[in-house]
Amino acid sequence: MDFKEELKNYQRIVEDELNKYRRDKSCPEAMLNESMEYSLIAGGKKLRPILILSTYKLFKDDFNVCMPYAIAIEMIHNFSLIHDDLPAIDNDDFRHGKLTNHKKFNESTAILAGDGLMNYAYIVISEDLKNTVNKEILDLKLKVFNEFTVAVDRMIAGEYVDTEFERKPISSDYLEYMHKNKTGALIRLCVRIGAILGGATEEQLADLTLYAEKIGLAFQIKDDILSEEGDEAVTGKPVGNDREKHKCTYVTKYGLEEAKTILDKIILEAIEITNKHGDKGEFLKQLAIYIKERNK
Amino acid sequence: MDFKEELKNYQRIVEDELNKYRRDKSCPEAMLNESMEYSLIAGGKKLRPILILSTYKLFKDDFNVCMPYAIAIEMIHNFSLIHDDLPAIDNDDFRHGKLTNHKKFNESTAILAGDGLMNYAYIVISEDLKNTVNKEILDLKLKVFNEFTVAVDRMIAGEYVDTEFERKPISSDYLEYMHKNKTGALIRLCVRIGAILGGATEEQLADLTLYAEKIGLAFQIKDDILSEEGDEAVTGKPVGNDREKHKCTYVTKYGLEEAKTILDKIILEAIEITNKHGDKGEFLKQLAIYIKERNK
Repeated sequence: MDFKEELKNYQRIVEDELNKYRRDKSCPEAMLNESMEYSLIAGGKKLRPILILSTYKLFKDDFNVCMPYAIAIEMIHNFSLIHDDLPAIDNDDFRHGKLTNHKKFNESTAILAGDGLMNYAYIVISEDLKNTVNKEILDLKLKVFNEFTVAVDRMIAGEYVDTEFERKPISSDYLEYMHKNKTGALIRLCVRIGAILGGATEEQLADLTLYAEKIGLAFQIKDDILSEEGDEAVTGKPVGNDREKHKCTYVTKYGLEEAKTILDKIILEAIEITNKHGDKGEFLKQLAIYIKERNK
Repeated sequence: MDFKEELKNYQRIVEDELNKYRRDKSCPEAMLNESMEYSLIAGGKKLRPILILSTYKLFKDDFNVCMPYAIAIEMIHNFSLIHDDLPAIDNDDFRHGKLTNHKKFNESTAILAGDGLMNYAYIVISEDLKNTVNKEILDLKLKVFNEFTVAVDRMIAGEYVDTEFERKPISSDYLEYMHKNKTGALIRLCVRIGAILGGATEEQLADLTLYAEKIGLAFQIKDDILSEEGDEAVTGKPVGNDREKHKCTYVTKYGLEEAKTILDKIILEAIEITNKHGDKGEFLKQLAIYIKERNK
C-alpha cells in the first residue's frame, strides 16, 4: 500500500463530499456563508473524517453509512479552530498558512461562523437520522449521535482548561486532562464512529478506542514539537510561539528530547494494536507513523 | 384562568427542570460550567420553553415527551444571548439586570460557555432520542430534531444580518428578514415542537405555525419599543441604546407610534387564531396579549 497515495485519495473523497455542503451565496447572510466555507472547505489535513472512513473500512466496503458523520466531524473541528483563533482566546493570525477567519472577515463574523459550523454539523446528523429507514442502523446512529455530542462537550472543556491555565505553571495531570479533552476526545470519537457504524464487536471497539487514545495523545505531542522546531514556511505557524507565550505544552514541560521519546513510545503501542488487525490494519498503522513523522 | 399565576407556574416547572441539568463543579473546567449556569438558570422569562409546553398542552396532559426539547431550546436561547452580548457583537454589559456573561467572567470563557450551551442542547436531545423506545414517537422526535437544527441555523443567520447591517440604512425587506430569522425562527420552532409532539394534524400545525410567526414578530417589535421607551430599572437595559447606536429597529425605522400600531394589528391576528381553539387556546391568547403589554 502506498500510504501517501491512499491518504490523498481519502482527502479527495472528503473534499468532494464537503463540496456538496456549500451554502447559499445569494441571501442576506451570504458573507457569513462565505466565511463558514472559507474555513471548512480549503486546507487542513482532514484527519478526523479520514479516521472515521478508514476505521469503518476495516469492516465495510462502502462509505454510505458513515459519510454524514465524517462531514459533521470536519464541521465541528473547523468551528473549534475558528473560535480558538479568536483574539480573546489564542489570538492567532494564521492557520494552514492562510489568514484566520476573523482576520480574513471580522471578529463578529468569525464568532457566528463558528456557531454556524457547529450547528451545521447537527443539521447534517439530523437529516441523516430522519432519512434512516433501517431500525438497526438507526439505533447504531443514535448511539453515535450521543457520543458525538459528549465528545464535543469534552473538546470545549479542554479548550477552556487550555485558555485558563495558559499562563500558569500546571501539573502534568492537568496537562494530560487538557489534551485528553481538547484534541483527544474528538479523535477517539472518530475511531469509535467508524467502528460502531462498521459493526465492530465490543472487544474490537475497546481495542480501537485504545488505538485512538494513543494517536490522539501522539498528535498533540507532535503539534507541540512542531510548534518548537517546525519549519514556519511548512507549518504556517510561527515557531517558538508557545514558548514565547509561556504556554504549557509537552515541550515546554518536558523539554524537546523527552517529548520525542514519549511520542516514540506511544506510537509503538498504537502500532501494536493495528498489528492485531493484520493487512486490514495497514492504513491505520501507517497513519500512526504519519502522525509522528509529519512536518505540518 | 389567572394568566399571571399560570405563567409563573410554567416558569417554576421550567426552572425545576433546568436545575436537573446543573454541571460538575469539581472538575478543571468548573468555572466554565459556572458560567454556563450563570446564564442558563437564573433570570429570563423562559418564554421559549413555555411556548413548547403550552402548545403541547393543547393536545396532551403531561409534559414527558416535550420536556427535553423545552430544556434544549432554553440552552440554545442562552447560547445566543451570550454570544450576542460579546464585545465584538452587541457589546452589552447588562442582561436581565445582571452583568452579561463576559463581564461577569471574561471574554474567552463567555465564547466557550456559549459554545458549550449550544452543544449541551444537542446532548439533551441525543440522550432523549437514544432512550425513546416507541418508534412512532421517535419518528416525531427525529422530525423535531431536524427542524430544531434548521431553526438554529436561521437564528444565527438573522444575528449575522443584524450585526452586518447595524450601522447602515436598510430596507424594510431586510429588517423583516432579520427579525424573521433572528427571533422569529426559534419562536416558530417552539410552537411547532409543541404541536408536532402533541400529535397535531397538518392543518392544526399550519394554523399554530401562523400564530407563532405573528407573536414572534410582535415580540421583536415590542423589544424595540421597550428599548426606546421602557423603564431602565425594569428592563435592565439602557433606554435609547438602539437609537444612539443607529441600530435599525422597527422604532428607528417606522417611529414609535407607527410601531405600536403595527404591534396592535399583529396581536389581534394572533388572537383570532387562538380563538379557533376555544377554551384550550386561552393561555396562548393571553400570552399574545402579554407579549404586547409586558414592560420588560
